[in-house]
Amino acid sequence: MGRSSIGVGLIGTGFMGKSHALAWHGVRPVFGDVPEIRLQALCEINQALADERASEFGFRRATDSWATLIDDPAIDVISITAPNAFHARMAIAALQAGKHVWCEKPMAPTFAEAEAMSDAARASGRTAILGYNYIQNPAITHIRKLLDEGAIGQVNHVRFEMDEDFMADPDAPFHWRNDRASGYGVIDDFAVHPLSIIRTLFGEVSQVMVDMIKPYPDRPAAHDQDGGRRPVQTHDVATALVRLANGVSGSLNVSRTAWGRKSRIAIQIFGARGSILFDQERMNELQLFTAEGRESERGFRTILTAPVHPPYDRFVPAPGHQLGFNDLKIIECRQLLGLIAGEEARVISFTQGLEIERTVHAMARSFDNGEWVSVSG
Amino acid sequence: MGRSSIGVGLIGTGFMGKSHALAWHGVRPVFGDVPEIRLQALCEINQALADERASEFGFRRATDSWATLIDDPAIDVISITAPNAFHARMAIAALQAGKHVWCEKPMAPTFAEAEAMSDAARASGRTAILGYNYIQNPAITHIRKLLDEGAIGQVNHVRFEMDEDFMADPDAPFHWRNDRASGYGVIDDFAVHPLSIIRTLFGEVSQVMVDMIKPYPDRPAAHDQDGGRRPVQTHDVATALVRLANGVSGSLNVSRTAWGRKSRIAIQIFGARGSILFDQERMNELQLFTAEGRESERGFRTILTAPVHPPYDRFVPAPGHQLGFNDLKIIECRQLLGLIAGEEARVISFTQGLEIERTVHAMARSFDNGEWVSVSG
Amino acid sequence: MGRSSIGVGLIGTGFMGKSHALAWHGVRPVFGDVPEIRLQALCEINQALADERASEFGFRRATDSWATLIDDPAIDVISITAPNAFHARMAIAALQAGKHVWCEKPMAPTFAEAEAMSDAARASGRTAILGYNYIQNPAITHIRKLLDEGAIGQVNHVRFEMDEDFMADPDAPFHWRNDRASGYGVIDDFAVHPLSIIRTLFGEVSQVMVDMIKPYPDRPAAHDQDGGRRPVQTHDVATALVRLANGVSGSLNVSRTAWGRKSRIAIQIFGARGSILFDQERMNELQLFTAEGRESERGFRTILTAPVHPPYDRFVPAPGHQLGFNDLKIIECRQLLGLIAGEEARVISFTQGLEIERTVHAMARSFDNGEWVSVSG
Amino acid sequence: MGRSSIGVGLIGTGFMGKSHALAWHGVRPVFGDVPEIRLQALCEINQALADERASEFGFRRATDSWATLIDDPAIDVISITAPNAFHARMAIAALQAGKHVWCEKPMAPTFAEAEAMSDAARASGRTAILGYNYIQNPAITHIRKLLDEGAIGQVNHVRFEMDEDFMADPDAPFHWRNDRASGYGVIDDFAVHPLSIIRTLFGEVSQVMVDMIKPYPDRPAAHDQDGGRRPVQTHDVATALVRLANGVSGSLNVSRTAWGRKSRIAIQIFGARGSILFDQERMNELQLFTAEGRESERGFRTILTAPVHPPYDRFVPAPGHQLGFNDLKIIECRQLLGLIAGEEARVISFTQGLEIERTVHAMARSFDNGEWVSVSG
Repeated sequence: MGRSSIGVGLIGTGFMGKSHALAWHGVRPVFGDVPEIRLQALCEINQALADERASEFGFRRATDSWATLIDDPAIDVISITAPNAFHARMAIAALQAGKHVWCEKPMAPTFAEAEAMSDAARASGRTAILGYNYIQNPAITHIRKLLDEGAIGQVNHVRFEMDEDFMADPDAPFHWRNDRASGYGVIDDFAVHPLSIIRTLFGEVSQVMVDMIKPYPDRPAAHDQDGGRRPVQTHDVATALVRLANGVSGSLNVSRTAWGRKSRIAIQIFGARGSILFDQERMNELQLFTAEGRESERGFRTILTAPVHPPYDRFVPAPGHQLGFNDLKIIECRQLLGLIAGEEARVISFTQGLEIERTVHAMARSFDNGEWVSVSG
Repeated sequence: MGRSSIGVGLIGTGFMGKSHALAWHGVRPVFGDVPEIRLQALCEINQALADERASEFGFRRATDSWATLIDDPAIDVISITAPNAFHARMAIAALQAGKHVWCEKPMAPTFAEAEAMSDAARASGRTAILGYNYIQNPAITHIRKLLDEGAIGQVNHVRFEMDEDFMADPDAPFHWRNDRASGYGVIDDFAVHPLSIIRTLFGEVSQVMVDMIKPYPDRPAAHDQDGGRRPVQTHDVATALVRLANGVSGSLNVSRTAWGRKSRIAIQIFGARGSILFDQERMNELQLFTAEGRESERGFRTILTAPVHPPYDRFVPAPGHQLGFNDLKIIECRQLLGLIAGEEARVISFTQGLEIERTVHAMARSFDNGEWVSVSG
Repeated sequence: MGRSSIGVGLIGTGFMGKSHALAWHGVRPVFGDVPEIRLQALCEINQALADERASEFGFRRATDSWATLIDDPAIDVISITAPNAFHARMAIAALQAGKHVWCEKPMAPTFAEAEAMSDAARASGRTAILGYNYIQNPAITHIRKLLDEGAIGQVNHVRFEMDEDFMADPDAPFHWRNDRASGYGVIDDFAVHPLSIIRTLFGEVSQVMVDMIKPYPDRPAAHDQDGGRRPVQTHDVATALVRLANGVSGSLNVSRTAWGRKSRIAIQIFGARGSILFDQERMNELQLFTAEGRESERGFRTILTAPVHPPYDRFVPAPGHQLGFNDLKIIECRQLLGLIAGEEARVISFTQGLEIERTVHAMARSFDNGEWVSVSG
Repeated sequence: MGRSSIGVGLIGTGFMGKSHALAWHGVRPVFGDVPEIRLQALCEINQALADERASEFGFRRATDSWATLIDDPAIDVISITAPNAFHARMAIAALQAGKHVWCEKPMAPTFAEAEAMSDAARASGRTAILGYNYIQNPAITHIRKLLDEGAIGQVNHVRFEMDEDFMADPDAPFHWRNDRASGYGVIDDFAVHPLSIIRTLFGEVSQVMVDMIKPYPDRPAAHDQDGGRRPVQTHDVATALVRLANGVSGSLNVSRTAWGRKSRIAIQIFGARGSILFDQERMNELQLFTAEGRESERGFRTILTAPVHPPYDRFVPAPGHQLGFNDLKIIECRQLLGLIAGEEARVISFTQGLEIERTVHAMARSFDNGEWVSVSG
């Protein structure tokens, strides 16, 4: 890569902020072929916390002003991991200041803001990507390769599920995610992830037909001593029929009230010559069935990711040793650096992210109207 | 049970005919508490085959006339395993002749015939059931018990899948199942099975929204030496959103072109206090998650069916030794005999089978019109 | 097969007696190519029970005298499912009376009796087999075929485990299996099963090195009102190193106190070109890994038994529909009938069963002496 | 922790060197509660490579002299990831120079050297640990907690397996690991890992009884143009009976020629009230069976590691998101820093590592003599 070093700024130091910090630390030791990473500055809600986190995360400077950070001339790229409501203004300002941007998903609460982000990215000529790191899993990359090679023939049908249980307890108090202001609910929270994988593996969604439910109509008001309850305004479960632009039919089911599911993104892909299965809860495995050889020995084979599934090899030279969630962020970081340097990369750019948002909004419209909706308009 | 013996007639001796024969042989040794079974007569397409099969299957008499068999006064109950197109006329005649009827699914190619079967059953006062044996699995029976006991709280969302790959090869020749005359395709073939389980566990389906595809638009004409191809007229893959009468939301996906799937009926049930999973390909297991106890030890537990899951105990007195497909038919046979004797039983009667057919036809209408359809209207 | 019918006698009507009865009922409907089965007589401990069971199991006559049954000229073959202590005298008498014998395992409490049974079988010229039905599983038969074909190259190492938990509760009262008079414990109970599979797949065991433990030194005396305890005299857990005559190294672990294991017989087979796995708790599956093709798609494939794995096809014509425990007994019955008719068959004859007993006794000696013991001497 | 910063030196920059570097980068962002980490210097075989790696791994200085690195006063702790043959001299020198040492396993090719390392550690008063990172898995830590709490009652029997297939190809050329000079073979390579876990969970091994094989007696000589072959001198497969000091019986099987196994460390633990299972190939899961509650709902539950299994929570705040191999090294690094600061920690110290080596040598003696060997003598 051309330049000898790259200056990094980080906004937000919660879970995803830490994950970005670890990625910036790890990307050069892991991959080698990237510039030196200078951890210039991070920004937090107040100076004390900012100072503490800068010390922990190994950043040189700390600030409580994201505008200050964005103006820092030593910074080339900015990781945005602040709450969703701030994404648009921060990303747009950063792009306008000539920085590259690595922003966590989802883009923004409103489609208009997401569109503005995408417009700003295009206008700036800078690299702007979203943190859809599940697509960076070497297992997913290998699935894409298998599909490209025709390992399972022409795909005709897919099924996607994403389920967790963090909202499954009916007695849990009302949460900001239950508030209409937070968006639609599970289709913002979760559907965007399988949609990012669908896009990576198959391209555009053309039409959607959606149903949604609120398993628990109300929840205890968090701070109400009198046992009051607040109505839940967002949906926790969505089921959808999808039609992809390439003619593939599919289903997409998402739930954040699925007891026992912790990080499930289950994928089933059916083609004319075989099938592929994957589940994020066993992210270091994929399953492949091909209609080849003697029938008596056919079966789904469980493939453990290994050095033959790049860039797994950059992390461990032995098969089956497994990558973790934060490793996917290191891969994403490498993709970002490649893009900045003019390489090809597989990421969700702001432009592509906007298409995901467009699909989510189409899903909401489909549910409201009880009918098929075309994503493109 | 009251009577000391029961006379049995069997029409059809293919796969399901053999399965019925085995069930009639096994039901008394397995359960003990049923009348003596007299295997009176079987009927096949010609007398030679009928004679051969009667000898093999241990039936006293053989005939090539199903009307003759139905008129046999020594016969109390008739197993109908002839091709679907004959179900209605045979079942109706048998019921009118005062016989009890155990007819394989599906009921009949047309809704009108199915309705006539249901009417005949009601008019006759005889016992008339359909061969939906998957619901007889002790694992399914235990799931019903768990739901009744509230083990996972109030159910809010379910997902059903049924997949096989017997039509998955795009080069396989045109088959009668690809012909419009055979019905709608996969929703006749397969959807009826998960619908029988939905009915057993949850009751009525109220609304459906369906999409379907033909993965392969045409197939080689079976007997065409010139390499001609015939257009496929039925659908091999269906995806559906379903709303149950009890307010539960669900999805139902079925495919007969899912490479690698051999006998999959995957069920996911989500409630306010836990979840239950099942897959027919591992029919001697179920999985249960309950939101109980310390969080650090929660997980889906794999429960192997055992004597504590009746009537498994009638087959083997030790856990984990496993029942097979044909054993489910023995259980179904025991349910039938119980019904005849006036006991309660869990079966799909002709009346309930008609509701399943009604749902299938609603699914077809939904696909044709691209909109939600109410099953009852 | 030559003869037109075969007369059957059954001694014992407990779990295994019922399983034999079901096998005799099912073998001709399932396979077709066997003589007519005449269920002549069964024997139980008293005439009332014998009468009841004869009625239930569909046998013509009932007796409380096994000697009477053995003398019945209408009987050609006798199923012996009485307690182990009676096996030798019944089997020897039956053979001397010119009957074929199908005796449940294990052969007999002492090696001398087992030897006498084997001698009697040889002297009689009749067919005499033991009920090691796990080897009849189409999955096991297919593993043998794969090994014969060299699918995984020359085998060098195997691991066998057999585990259940029916003795796992430390508070369960003293059981006759805890008494020295019952034999050695788990190596009689369980080790014989994996040994029957080892013999079927690989041949003779040449040397053994064994350790054993009693997890619970004593148990509540069953009928002691005063809370007395009795010392446990047999071993519940055994671990063994084994060397096969063909040079393969192996391990054999068996336990009847393994909580959560219900019917586990886990097999791992490693060869120069691949590996094969099997577990009886999922008896309709096997797993195959072959070192073939591109490394990035290699993995253990889960093969569901199917019509291409005979004689599965005789039970169900569709893959993945699954056989159960009692179906294995039907296959064993078909093997027995084949042997009687002079066909080749894969069974554990009395002669081979004696070698299994010899191995068990060698295992006990190895543990007693703390050293490697040669099975043959 | 007391001190404000800690200086780190790294010897060796291969796979494990990179893993140590990533751990040193990640430990403070992940845990927060550790001193600032100064990456002072690394050492490689020549200066050019050292310079390149220092730049990639973010170390300040580079040297081709490990003695120089050891003498660096700015360095407090030294990661030793050089080839095994160098471990003893480097570690001893480092300890004598007053450095803390984090050395990769195994300790050294000879027991005498391992003993010298242990002696040096004791004499130095410094912290000296070995890189047995599998014991740092939150799943393993949770198993230890469950055992301590009595979740499965008193343990009586355990089974350990460790298998990979990197030596499984019989046509692979002769490798230094096939040479007697490399040690015993698989018991050096692999057995040490399960032994580190046995030690962590249960304590000392008291007696061993071992068998070993060489599946392939010779291999192609690597550089022999004439197709010559060299005899294999080390063993690739070992089976062992083990007796633990606490009375538990066990088996230990290890293979580096087990086709299809990639990183398997399978553990089965049986107690008086339940069982625990684990497999390193699915390192983010454990399975627990407890003999509690109604029998009809008992089963092995699959527990996905989660924030409730510390220190998983330091990496990701959501369950099921998974850690990878390199994350275990970060945890190990945190344990090391805790030890240095005087905290309790769970590691394999040089003293404990020596006991593991002692067990390996006892295993070799047992095989040579064909008899039980006491580890302590």
